Amino acid sequence: MALIVQKYGGTSVGDVERIKKVAERIKHTREEGNQLVVVVSARSGVTNELIARAEAVCANPSEREMDQLLSIGEQETIALTAMALHGIGVPAISYTGAQAGIVTDKAHTKARIHSINADALKRDLHAGNVIIVAGFQGIDSDGQTTTLGRGGSDLSAIAIAGAVKADKCEIYTDVDGVYTADPRVVKNARKIEEISYDEMLELASAGSKVMQSRSVEFAKKYDVVFEVRSSFNHNPGTIVKEEVASMEKVVVRGVAVDKNQAKVAVSNITDKPGSAAKVFRALADANIVVDMIVQNAGSNGVANLTFTVPANEVSKATRALEPVLKELGGTISSQDQVAKLSVVGVGMKTHSGVAATLFQALAEAGVNIDLISTSEIKITVAIEQAKADAAARAVHTAFGLDKA
Amino acid sequence: MALIVQKYGGTSVGDVERIKKVAERIKHTREEGNQLVVVVSARSGVTNELIARAEAVCANPSEREMDQLLSIGEQETIALTAMALHGIGVPAISYTGAQAGIVTDKAHTKARIHSINADALKRDLHAGNVIIVAGFQGIDSDGQTTTLGRGGSDLSAIAIAGAVKADKCEIYTDVDGVYTADPRVVKNARKIEEISYDEMLELASAGSKVMQSRSVEFAKKYDVVFEVRSSFNHNPGTIVKEEVASMEKVVVRGVAVDKNQAKVAVSNITDKPGSAAKVFRALADANIVVDMIVQNAGSNGVANLTFTVPANEVSKATRALEPVLKELGGTISSQDQVAKLSVVGVGMKTHSGVAATLFQALAEAGVNIDLISTSEIKITVAIEQAKADAAARAVHTAFGLDKA
Repeated sequence: MALIVQKYGGTSVGDVERIKKVAERIKHTREEGNQLVVVVSARSGVTNELIARAEAVCANPSEREMDQLLSIGEQETIALTAMALHGIGVPAISYTGAQAGIVTDKAHTKARIHSINADALKRDLHAGNVIIVAGFQGIDSDGQTTTLGRGGSDLSAIAIAGAVKADKCEIYTDVDGVYTADPRVVKNARKIEEISYDEMLELASAGSKVMQSRSVEFAKKYDVVFEVRSSFNHNPGTIVKEEVASMEKVVVRGVAVDKNQAKVAVSNITDKPGSAAKVFRALADANIVVDMIVQNAGSNGVANLTFTVPANEVSKATRALEPVLKELGGTISSQDQVAKLSVVGVGMKTHSGVAATLFQALAEAGVNIDLISTSEIKITVAIEQAKADAAARAVHTAFGLDKA
Repeated sequence: MALIVQKYGGTSVGDVERIKKVAERIKHTREEGNQLVVVVSARSGVTNELIARAEAVCANPSEREMDQLLSIGEQETIALTAMALHGIGVPAISYTGAQAGIVTDKAHTKARIHSINADALKRDLHAGNVIIVAGFQGIDSDGQTTTLGRGGSDLSAIAIAGAVKADKCEIYTDVDGVYTADPRVVKNARKIEEISYDEMLELASAGSKVMQSRSVEFAKKYDVVFEVRSSFNHNPGTIVKEEVASMEKVVVRGVAVDKNQAKVAVSNITDKPGSAAKVFRALADANIVVDMIVQNAGSNGVANLTFTVPANEVSKATRALEPVLKELGGTISSQDQVAKLSVVGVGMKTHSGVAATLFQALAEAGVNIDLISTSEIKITVAIEQAKADAAARAVHTAFGLDKA
């Protein structure tokens, strides 16, 4: 008998008919002889409705009250899911985040899980019940309701799987798993059977939207193996786990593209120690996430810095840098319509020639490379947005990722 | 500085515009120098929507899960009300039933309040906040969410007023207060300024629908004075309190009519000790609430019993009595289209002639009396339903209740 944690997202429990389908799937898994803890999100759309109502009564709702409000979305689905299970003869008990013992810090709307007291949950589980837990929410040490921020239900599932030492953790979503590239762009993309935490994290940071990074980080930290799979079919998904030696045989696990980027160039600033720090401190203080950074020291005591930011933050970045440029001199220019293309794979650590293969594939596809940055298991290039799809297809083929 | 508990029902907080109006009213009361604890219901209609969804996933939803589900209705309004107060510059904190320390027994969907731990609430109150508490809900000693059943938010407000020793408890609703008769029927009905708990209870049992009896009983038990008033105007309402001597000057406080009654007659049953008990035990076992009961012992060893039940329970009552009649002999007959008319007043205890005045008024109005029953402060008659409105007007005039 295995202990399985399943998580169903908002689309999977979007209405009463889908909730009944989820109940059937849970019943099926249970009848195969498994114990189940199921984490559910709010019905898709509910959170946005609640936010609209909050904004109708108050221009700037407090984060504490926002948590009090938003947590009802999941509380609805847990009760309905438990009832749907009762309706088909499966014993089930719903748990709010507080009842599940999910204790967080006090950072409303973006709380971090501090600990999980799973005693009650384990007791009800061993008594033969399926446990339905509200994702996305917890309780702080003062009894206040907290929420975990975007992707919070995935985090709830992975944290609970760790706390109850589950044999499996299945994250059900509306895609089949993690692909070697976006299948809408690269027709020959294949589903990845197994991927390491680090590869998954690099793919997420490179623009692949399957899961939020912090859920993967949490899984990595507590060594929780999980599978991303679809709630609309029974295909096996992608298993995310600690790196094993055999994973290194594949040089590149996947190709990710993020088209919503812009490039900002800061030219001819005074080149002295601390100049770059001032630039990036100003951006950080404005909460702008900078990604690729390239610096060229000039020959005449000036330096040039180029970096990418999300396209919608260009003007914010420009404004944030104005006072710095007054001090350091120099000029600022920006260019949107930029895409980032990344190849990710733990195999890079033991294979040479990855960069050469990448650059050659891009050259043959007529794609000019604007910026390059590398990590141990990732190479990212900034390219012209209009050529991003063709570039992704060429690179996918060059690394032998196309399906047979 | 007075401490005031206010309760707003589902109509008063029915949408975001009404919630903003309630917030203005709270702000106004606070600016008069008062501390406030505010109990709110779910937006009107929300509970029915949730019940419909529950019934769509499960034919017979469990009571525990129903409580888990229904409690989100109030959790929405507390957060929105607190936000609306923030929006107009009033510090406010929302509390679920659990956070407010409302501890109940474990009877899901009809829990009784066991105790209230108001420490946190008092602390936040004394720090200058308005406290917004979810009505209708509590938590049991195992941390399970419970709800208090119909009229539960009134009960929450009265229980909290008792726990914090409030100076005033105001129950806001969609009527102006308690009237001497239903103003839709009796044009000359007047609003009652003060009424005793017992009179209020007798009016409720006689069909006046302003509040559920158990909230009034709770207020009486813990000596909580409360006022029923409208959230749509600023008129003074009706104050409900312990009986004082001056109240006895008024013989009849009000006239109540319940038109949804039926009369059931059980004739010629064996007249021996225990016969009546068997009849009413059978009805109680079928959860049928019997109201007026009249017994005539026959001369030939048989007895006749007549009683009233809600009109929609006649066939259930008839079925429940079939086995008893097999044992005791006798026949059963029923008549619907029956109304109950009651006059209520603590003054009856010290005034004679009330029954005579009542019967004479009915006679002059051409109304035949079918059954009569009396309590210390109430006389009830069963009459023909079609004549109930005319009877109410005649009796209202006869007892001098018409407005000047």
